Amino acid sequence: MTRHTLAVFVAAAFTSATCFAQGSQTVLEDFKPSTLNQPGQEYPQVNSQGYARFRIKAPKADSVKVSLGLGGRGGTRLTKGEDGFWTGTTEGPMDEGFHYYHLTVDGGTFNDPGALNYYGSVRWESGIEIPAHDQDFYALKNVPHGHVQQILFPSPSTQTSRRAYVYTPPGYEKEKSKKYPVLYLQHGWGEDETAWSNQGHANLIMDNLIAEGKIKPFIIVMTYGMTNEVKWGRMKEFRIEPFQTVLVDELIPYVDANFRTLADRNNRAMAGLSMGGMETHTITLNKPDVFGAYALLSGGIYNSEELKDKSKAKLIFLSCGSKENPDRVNKAAAELKAAGYNAVSFVSEKTAHEFLTWRRSLHELAPLLFK
Amino acid sequence: MTRHTLAVFVAAAFTSATCFAQGSQTVLEDFKPSTLNQPGQEYPQVNSQGYARFRIKAPKADSVKVSLGLGGRGGTRLTKGEDGFWTGTTEGPMDEGFHYYHLTVDGGTFNDPGALNYYGSVRWESGIEIPAHDQDFYALKNVPHGHVQQILFPSPSTQTSRRAYVYTPPGYEKEKSKKYPVLYLQHGWGEDETAWSNQGHANLIMDNLIAEGKIKPFIIVMTYGMTNEVKWGRMKEFRIEPFQTVLVDELIPYVDANFRTLADRNNRAMAGLSMGGMETHTITLNKPDVFGAYALLSGGIYNSEELKDKSKAKLIFLSCGSKENPDRVNKAAAELKAAGYNAVSFVSEKTAHEFLTWRRSLHELAPLLFK
Repeated sequence: MTRHTLAVFVAAAFTSATCFAQGSQTVLEDFKPSTLNQPGQEYPQVNSQGYARFRIKAPKADSVKVSLGLGGRGGTRLTKGEDGFWTGTTEGPMDEGFHYYHLTVDGGTFNDPGALNYYGSVRWESGIEIPAHDQDFYALKNVPHGHVQQILFPSPSTQTSRRAYVYTPPGYEKEKSKKYPVLYLQHGWGEDETAWSNQGHANLIMDNLIAEGKIKPFIIVMTYGMTNEVKWGRMKEFRIEPFQTVLVDELIPYVDANFRTLADRNNRAMAGLSMGGMETHTITLNKPDVFGAYALLSGGIYNSEELKDKSKAKLIFLSCGSKENPDRVNKAAAELKAAGYNAVSFVSEKTAHEFLTWRRSLHELAPLLFK
Repeated sequence: MTRHTLAVFVAAAFTSATCFAQGSQTVLEDFKPSTLNQPGQEYPQVNSQGYARFRIKAPKADSVKVSLGLGGRGGTRLTKGEDGFWTGTTEGPMDEGFHYYHLTVDGGTFNDPGALNYYGSVRWESGIEIPAHDQDFYALKNVPHGHVQQILFPSPSTQTSRRAYVYTPPGYEKEKSKKYPVLYLQHGWGEDETAWSNQGHANLIMDNLIAEGKIKPFIIVMTYGMTNEVKWGRMKEFRIEPFQTVLVDELIPYVDANFRTLADRNNRAMAGLSMGGMETHTITLNKPDVFGAYALLSGGIYNSEELKDKSKAKLIFLSCGSKENPDRVNKAAAELKAAGYNAVSFVSEKTAHEFLTWRRSLHELAPLLFK
């Protein structure tokens, strides 16, 4: 993976929230509060077409902007009403799914006080959810729910206790002798170990798949992958070694000691989105005896030349949104299949470098793992 | 517990963040970033005396205020520099410990983009930490750490899956046959089930006490207690029944089924801070067969008349900050002791209705429980 490729992931993380669905239309006045609003907050709102509407109190401000908007036009400018509230609606419908955003109030960057916050772009950003036509697969349903555990594991290499989240499937506590495979699942640039649960709903995707009998239950472990902090514009400083050490030499042994895992490569997979895909790519190639299945979600590709021993890669999963570079992902999977690998590609329709692409990717990946 | 008393708790939650330590002095220029800043953020800062300094970018704003400040004077007004940043320092040193705050930018309410967010006052507020002289007891140390699990438990009475956090002590996963007592621990008005871990560091307090051999390890369960939403100025609408049903009929059975608990009243305690203390008071009196120990942290008192069967109350713990009403708590404990109860009072020195009072209270309470 080249430095150039990492720069592409980071640039995508910055710009993708400005993508819009195609076409113009009459705006329907059926706006409802976003499902990611803070308790009791009426704004931001979303209508059935995917337009977003904002309402911000700042009676003495001179300008209020929202970062979500048509690319290159500087987002959505709000207009002040006589009541001191600034309001505005996006110029077009937005892609289905989750979007990060923030406000610019008189030249300063602030979050929308109506919305919940999500860690992205190396800060806690506001989040908004455009209901997706297939949102049922990550909905909170009346099914048995797994637990998401915050663990603090010792990390001698970084001289601290590091945080990770561990999803254990429903029934984990009751079936006291059962052991489970484990997926190590990484976030993207500027995000952290909270992303896959908060933005990604990984736990609900798993709960629903398990309730439907579509997958063999497994554990998911999510930790912070930016141990070697990569700043915008300083990509050449990126080194994989610090994170590889934390993951392989510290976190995996802790998880295998503290959870009922099947602790071998055939029952251990690694996946990551965007920069987490780049980490997955490098670490799985460096440590073929540790992981048996690899998945890159909007995170690049493998080619058959770099995979030294085809008997070891049980599954290679490559995905992205249709608004990214689906041809590259499909061609890479086809080339790997022709070379004898169990490779699968998945393209999320009408989504870009955003979390609905990755929710759908996890939903497609999970049934293929640990067979 | 009267309606008036609840109003006092709510009012305290709104005003206590404006408390200052006594005295005036030269401000030392040894400011450092608050430990609760977002990653890489230099501001807000705190000096060794407890003064807080803020720095907010808003080049075109007309006024920027911080809600932390001397009571009644409207917080701390910031001054704009030529670089477009607004800066300012509190007029006095602040009490040690955690404080909620927010900004007012041109008449609108926003969070400080430099600080982490904490749920309080029914919104995600900014948080700042004034280092306490005794902060070691809740520090992240190189000791075995328990896990904090997010659970989603079925709640037929509210027709949804509700969220709780469950602290399991170090070694819980490995000691597969050991069963543990359980403390049900409630947040205050305007907070939620995240408060005791995020603001309170309950997990670190427990980890450290266990590492020192000072307590018998137990489980802590923290859930949302505002099922009957109490809005500011509408206290008479408060009813305990919805929360009591969720706690006693839904959450406790789920915890006893999914965790290795000692499922009897002698091994089950309830505690709460502020409004959570009021809930604890009412529910323990309503359900004396469910809980064996009760603790009110800045949350009122018990008197011997309302405790019908003294054989059942194994421990009654009453606490508050020295800037609240310590005489009331001490007198109530003395009266209960004279009446034959195992009652203990604790007063947190130089703190008000804030989280350092409650961190210290948990630290004092834990060694007394489940003996």
